[in-house]
Amino acid sequence: MLTYARKGLLHAVDGLTRDDLDHLHDSQSNSIGALLAHATAVERWYQIVSFDERKPTSADEAPLLAALDLGDPGRRELRGRELVGYLDDLSEARRDTLAALALRDDDWRERPLKAMPEMNAHWAWFHVAEDEISHRGQIHWLRKRLPGRERRS
Amino acid sequence: MLTYARKGLLHAVDGLTRDDLDHLHDSQSNSIGALLAHATAVERWYQIVSFDERKPTSADEAPLLAALDLGDPGRRELRGRELVGYLDDLSEARRDTLAALALRDDDWRERPLKAMPEMNAHWAWFHVAEDEISHRGQIHWLRKRLPGRERRS
Repeated sequence: MLTYARKGLLHAVDGLTRDDLDHLHDSQSNSIGALLAHATAVERWYQIVSFDERKPTSADEAPLLAALDLGDPGRRELRGRELVGYLDDLSEARRDTLAALALRDDDWRERPLKAMPEMNAHWAWFHVAEDEISHRGQIHWLRKRLPGRERRS
Repeated sequence: MLTYARKGLLHAVDGLTRDDLDHLHDSQSNSIGALLAHATAVERWYQIVSFDERKPTSADEAPLLAALDLGDPGRRELRGRELVGYLDDLSEARRDTLAALALRDDDWRERPLKAMPEMNAHWAWFHVAEDEISHRGQIHWLRKRLPGRERRS
């Protein structure tokens, strides 16, 4: 599920320029770049909860906060990067996830998380995929409305 | 996953009026109502492929087509209904899915579909949830921009 969701995300942003990634459809929109940063931040956050088995601290969250929360801080801070930068971050986060999952078994996956026993690891990682899929739906919508896209594609 | 995705979808449309459901954000947008009809149509299509074990015929697809394909036919045909109508359709489709799944076991779920051996039933139903999640992401975005919403909510 994680791999399939990621494939869809990468396809949705293929070929976008820095201007495309920074574009704000309206004053309340998140840019596509910010939504990519969000996917990485969500994955990093759930790595701490599920693999490190602890709640993220303020220090853990500080570098992720604009991307986790999006909105105004996201619009201010998450801009000016090329696609390759976002993709490198996504790919590094995913490499760490898959390496950590490979060390664990199905029993671990089904047990409640020590740090957040209201969920188990299976749900946590389904939710990471789910969040990514839901934002990919938004990226598709936003991409179709990028200024000048109809001329370029 | 199906239940969780559906819960998110229902939450996203809670309290919308007929005008909200019919609203087109721009000339290329699907209305929220059309996206709800799409979720039902996708579920009906995958019921035929996975439970009836055959490819949907043109006769099967005819009543679903505007909702499956969206775009211009969807904008023309899928309008004028109250929320309860869309929700009834969703709920009837889901009732049929859960009844059919209850008759089948995990081996069935993992076997390639007879009608479309490139996928198994597990993937097919993951994909139904995935499609719903991705459109729910769009519904969230569209709902925030409904005319007059900021005054009403």
